[in-house]
Amino acid sequence: MFISIEGIDGCGKTTLCNKLSEYLTKKNIDHIKTLEPGGTLIANQIREILLHSEGLDLKSEILLFLAARAQHVSELIKPALDEGKWVITDRYSDSFLAYQAYGRGFDFDFLNKLNNFACYNLYPDKTFYLKIDVKTSLARQTDPDRISSSDVDFYKRIKLGFDELSQKFSDRFEIIDATQSIEKVFQDILKELNI
Amino acid sequence: MFISIEGIDGCGKTTLCNKLSEYLTKKNIDHIKTLEPGGTLIANQIREILLHSEGLDLKSEILLFLAARAQHVSELIKPALDEGKWVITDRYSDSFLAYQAYGRGFDFDFLNKLNNFACYNLYPDKTFYLKIDVKTSLARQTDPDRISSSDVDFYKRIKLGFDELSQKFSDRFEIIDATQSIEKVFQDILKELNI
Repeated sequence: MFISIEGIDGCGKTTLCNKLSEYLTKKNIDHIKTLEPGGTLIANQIREILLHSEGLDLKSEILLFLAARAQHVSELIKPALDEGKWVITDRYSDSFLAYQAYGRGFDFDFLNKLNNFACYNLYPDKTFYLKIDVKTSLARQTDPDRISSSDVDFYKRIKLGFDELSQKFSDRFEIIDATQSIEKVFQDILKELNI
Repeated sequence: MFISIEGIDGCGKTTLCNKLSEYLTKKNIDHIKTLEPGGTLIANQIREILLHSEGLDLKSEILLFLAARAQHVSELIKPALDEGKWVITDRYSDSFLAYQAYGRGFDFDFLNKLNNFACYNLYPDKTFYLKIDVKTSLARQTDPDRISSSDVDFYKRIKLGFDELSQKFSDRFEIIDATQSIEKVFQDILKELNI
């Protein structure tokens, strides 16, 4: 079982990944919990460049995200699934498409093709989209005063991206109302997973 | 004027780039000398991952080369050309295609599209292909005993790649017989450049 948790900043992805991992441990379900960009030594080196490089070219950024994903899939995710483990990832290909295609305005079909290449066409069985509105996202950020109006527009495009992706890939997407309490969100996820 | 120097290992690329740069300096032709992968701080960080990561996934490798190129072009090559400088680069897109498409066997058209994206469709005015045969390449390597027969096959495919690229992109390619002395190779390049 391959599960990705997706959504805009402040939707509770990381908290929910942790709760789900703890629950699986209690249930003796062998699994790994990982995140993007990152998950392996090399992917983390790429993550460092992505997070800490001033003046990073936008195309270079796209290609680094993809490079990190290729390494993540081939070195960690695919082998874990082959061993029968569950994989829970905090962000995956949908974040990439929401941020780079919808947020930055790069061509969706081209990025989708690049993504198919990078992830070896390996997609989650279930993608939980923790849906909140942009207002809630902004209110949950640690330093909301630093957010400019162009940031708000950027977040709105990303939110629209996730909404559209959840329709486009409706076979694997589950939309969860993440304005609810963490506990309720978690129960909704467990119900969908039937565990 | 944007010049790339290409060819298989041992063909003399780096020496010729240095000689050409010295010559341009003497002639007071404002220029930069650079190399791939690398050329900028961020591209050099990517280069470090490329050169020193054990277990690097082959697709991740491709995407890292492209990420380094996008950064190299947007941060260094394009601005230098815009300022009227000449740019000499030790390897560029043709090495990428020769190694990854011909050498590794990835789809040429797909990689070519990725490359167009990464390099902002910016290609050299002149590409000097320093042509040697694989035997000469092997003889010039510092530790020829360490080269396996699968390495030899790999070099042969790369050599074939450069040969075919020089036909496909014959408008910008100049084939130089690099089995000649360095001085003769250098004179051939100057003659082609008409300087």
